[in-house]
Amino acid sequence: MNNTFLANLNWRHATKKFDPKKKIDQKIVEKILEAIRMTPTSLGLQTMHTYVVTDEKLKEKIRPKSFNQSQVTDCSHLLVLCYRNDPNQRIDEYVKMVTKGKLVEKLKLKPMELMMRGYVTTQLRGRIDEWSARQVYIALGFAMAACAELQVDSCPMEGFDPEAVDKILDLPKNIKSVLLLPIGYRKADPKKKKIRFSREDMFSFVE
Amino acid sequence: MNNTFLANLNWRHATKKFDPKKKIDQKIVEKILEAIRMTPTSLGLQTMHTYVVTDEKLKEKIRPKSFNQSQVTDCSHLLVLCYRNDPNQRIDEYVKMVTKGKLVEKLKLKPMELMMRGYVTTQLRGRIDEWSARQVYIALGFAMAACAELQVDSCPMEGFDPEAVDKILDLPKNIKSVLLLPIGYRKADPKKKKIRFSREDMFSFVE
Repeated sequence: MNNTFLANLNWRHATKKFDPKKKIDQKIVEKILEAIRMTPTSLGLQTMHTYVVTDEKLKEKIRPKSFNQSQVTDCSHLLVLCYRNDPNQRIDEYVKMVTKGKLVEKLKLKPMELMMRGYVTTQLRGRIDEWSARQVYIALGFAMAACAELQVDSCPMEGFDPEAVDKILDLPKNIKSVLLLPIGYRKADPKKKKIRFSREDMFSFVE
Repeated sequence: MNNTFLANLNWRHATKKFDPKKKIDQKIVEKILEAIRMTPTSLGLQTMHTYVVTDEKLKEKIRPKSFNQSQVTDCSHLLVLCYRNDPNQRIDEYVKMVTKGKLVEKLKLKPMELMMRGYVTTQLRGRIDEWSARQVYIALGFAMAACAELQVDSCPMEGFDPEAVDKILDLPKNIKSVLLLPIGYRKADPKKKKIRFSREDMFSFVE
């Protein structure tokens, strides 16, 4: 495999015009989802959920709630990246997953469980939504890195009405959309050169 | 190049024990920084700055402000990922970079400049710090993806006292630390298996 993430840093760009006829092979989509699934998150709790939308009618409904941007409907798959705001429920699920319900394993995990509960109820008081949303941004990075490696185009979008999208997707109360990531294939190469600040602007070395 | 990001998703882990004798070659460090520099961010403003700390005395000072975790001092390079909370200053810098001070170019860019100023002053009112901090999490994802591809170990850390670290590094007022990313080489492979929720837990398909 020659196409790697680092080699494709310049190739990737926030794709505004997708070719609506080109669909991503399901095997490739699964690789991108696997990158999201493997994203490291705070406490390992993975307080997130991703909706993979290919239903054209739903994409049409979401488009006006995202400044009518065409990438929402023209993309192959619309990923709606969401955070979860139920950390104690998530800790229950984590304990169940790790211990498989075995008593001895539950006792072994108890100190970590108590640490996690303490952290989310005291340290994160009033900041659960924000803490959880930030984790989704790490997953966004991993998803876009996977896309770049696979030469799949993507367009990260903060600009949409999350409450309206939550309603359209009929999300449960503990799940809130925070980012859209249309993925697919570009209609043409971008006309403009990629714009980035210099190394000197962005880094300081304390040696 | 055979080692790719996706192939290394299972290899990478939040490395707690670094080998303090193993240092990352500067060419490799530059590739990781380039991934941070190329990270897509909201409005393309790259409201972030990264401190690359190799000064052992400074690492020693930061360690007690991050729950005394040994990876802070044992790593090869300690990346301190910061956000900037001066979006209007950043827009000035963006205009300068893109137009190179040319009047015609400045006029061409004006509509975009006004859109950006409107967005940061009205839409983001009271949420500048949070908006900017979130962008750093995307860069964290890109940095860790680059590390995985290069088989460099990393350990993402939210758990530290950002105000104390800002003081230690003597950061200017517009720059605030939000994440630590010690990078280097593991002392030994992890004993525990990687824990992740299932595909079924994390994704819903709306087809």
